[in-house]
Amino acid sequence: MTLVACLGGGQLGRMLALAGIPLGLRFRFLDPSSDACAGQVGELLVGSFDDDALLDRLADGAAVVTYEFENVPVAAAARLGAVPGVRALAEGQDRLREKVLFRRLGIPTARFGGLGETGLPAVVKSRRLGYDGKGQRVVEAEEPLRQDELAEELVPFSRELSIVAVRGRDGGVAFYPMTENVHRDGILRASRAPAVDVPEKLAQDYARRLLEELDYVGVLALELFEVEGELLANEFAPRVHNTAHWTIDGARTSQFENHLRAVLGLPLGPTAALGDAVMVNLVGSLPPLERLLGLPGARAHLYGKEEKPGRKVGHVTFVGASADTVAEAIRVAGGDF
Amino acid sequence: MTLVACLGGGQLGRMLALAGIPLGLRFRFLDPSSDACAGQVGELLVGSFDDDALLDRLADGAAVVTYEFENVPVAAAARLGAVPGVRALAEGQDRLREKVLFRRLGIPTARFGGLGETGLPAVVKSRRLGYDGKGQRVVEAEEPLRQDELAEELVPFSRELSIVAVRGRDGGVAFYPMTENVHRDGILRASRAPAVDVPEKLAQDYARRLLEELDYVGVLALELFEVEGELLANEFAPRVHNTAHWTIDGARTSQFENHLRAVLGLPLGPTAALGDAVMVNLVGSLPPLERLLGLPGARAHLYGKEEKPGRKVGHVTFVGASADTVAEAIRVAGGDF
Repeated sequence: MTLVACLGGGQLGRMLALAGIPLGLRFRFLDPSSDACAGQVGELLVGSFDDDALLDRLADGAAVVTYEFENVPVAAAARLGAVPGVRALAEGQDRLREKVLFRRLGIPTARFGGLGETGLPAVVKSRRLGYDGKGQRVVEAEEPLRQDELAEELVPFSRELSIVAVRGRDGGVAFYPMTENVHRDGILRASRAPAVDVPEKLAQDYARRLLEELDYVGVLALELFEVEGELLANEFAPRVHNTAHWTIDGARTSQFENHLRAVLGLPLGPTAALGDAVMVNLVGSLPPLERLLGLPGARAHLYGKEEKPGRKVGHVTFVGASADTVAEAIRVAGGDF
Repeated sequence: MTLVACLGGGQLGRMLALAGIPLGLRFRFLDPSSDACAGQVGELLVGSFDDDALLDRLADGAAVVTYEFENVPVAAAARLGAVPGVRALAEGQDRLREKVLFRRLGIPTARFGGLGETGLPAVVKSRRLGYDGKGQRVVEAEEPLRQDELAEELVPFSRELSIVAVRGRDGGVAFYPMTENVHRDGILRASRAPAVDVPEKLAQDYARRLLEELDYVGVLALELFEVEGELLANEFAPRVHNTAHWTIDGARTSQFENHLRAVLGLPLGPTAALGDAVMVNLVGSLPPLERLLGLPGARAHLYGKEEKPGRKVGHVTFVGASADTVAEAIRVAGGDF
């Protein structure tokens, strides 16, 4: 059986394995945590991404090494020839390099740099290792920024959107329909797809520039702000992405299966939506399963993780559901978003 | 995490686990074979279904014990209080008892008994332990039958159909759309669902009689012959069934998820079809994955089993595919059926 090795063993790795096992694949993960939830569906090596011997064990016998976590050390990915390539990792790990890359590729962004560039108020982010809103603050008055910080213009966006694309080893690209996203406290709470009245072609064009510049193979997500009808790139993630979890139930091929198809050099699958999908994240704690499954048409995805405030522990997707059902789902998920 | 224990660890157990892991369930299987393929997605105990100590280890800590194999010894299922109940197992394991039960419930069958009852030619089957056409022969002239054999009238059926139903712990029943099936050499080769121009209500009525008589909980399949517009029951299986594998990709809730929901006392999910589905079994050997996935819209399910003549090693499903695509799939699968 073909072995896929993966740096990181969280829920994204777990969902990659659940998509890949039916294709006859098996999985091995490396994660610092001994209870990394992907270990429930594959072999789990526990240790540091800096441990070369462990990295080599991870890759031993694997047809491909990929990652599910954008803060994997570039050196680890480089050592193993991981796919997507290290350039995407390196560009994505530093918010300043990322924004400069967007600008160079003609992809509009909010103003960024120091507070002089952005004006006030601005949002100040750590350049590295931020996720789910961690390491961010809104600044109302001039203050000195640290070397490892970046200011970004606080844009009055009307919507947060994302586009998720997949590029094969042959350079062929497919796009999922765009998704509209709702965050709270920096954490994604819900996504709706296909987003309506969006400049789909423009977003695809931006994503394609990134994919081609990075000679990318696999799934990539580009997060965008819609501001007065224009799209501003916020960030990209060189991996499968929470805003496309709806594709498991709501698209002809999930982002997880298409990532595997891409990195293994297999033909990509169709990305069309099956209907209107809504995904609601379960954050911090899980409602009782009988309550979740009692929601008409609910497709539950629980990650086998311990409950903890602010932690994504599952999601639930509805395809073709009524607005009432979705509102009830949001209540069950404990959301007031 | 809720533990589900399962007697048998073949592909049906594997697909149960792949449906249940996203619900936050974990799985333990008991199988005589150390390379039982469900062991790739759960804990595998290797040994005999007659080993009481092993049976008790299987059930230890499990929320429910179920089975994926209809020839599990009744004593094993009884010891563990398996769901569906032992009565369904006992009735289904003996073709004579099964046919007598059909008759008692007013479910029509072909004539059966000795050759005197059936006339000639007839098909003679072993009463017990037959599957995939094993232990069957066509008899053209009078001959003595063994005690453990049963003759059945050879009916000139126009179609082979099946109906798969699920009954919850609360007695609620849901039916999948009926399926039309093609066998060759006694092995299912392809299924098409929803079957067209079928007496759906009548088949549902027959299945419901069985479910209620057996006070059944879980998924049950009833195989039927269509003969001159009438339905004759052939056999039932007290488990998830090959003729409903299409539901993984082609129904709102798969038979595997609904079986788990039923045996765990969770609400049943909707059974409606998402479109016209065709499932083609991969028997004996696997075509290259790139060829399978290159078929437009193919959903591949490979079981992680060693290739062997006559063995089911995977299946591929198409939802809403063109007739040309399906014909090509059948060629790729090595079929001339």
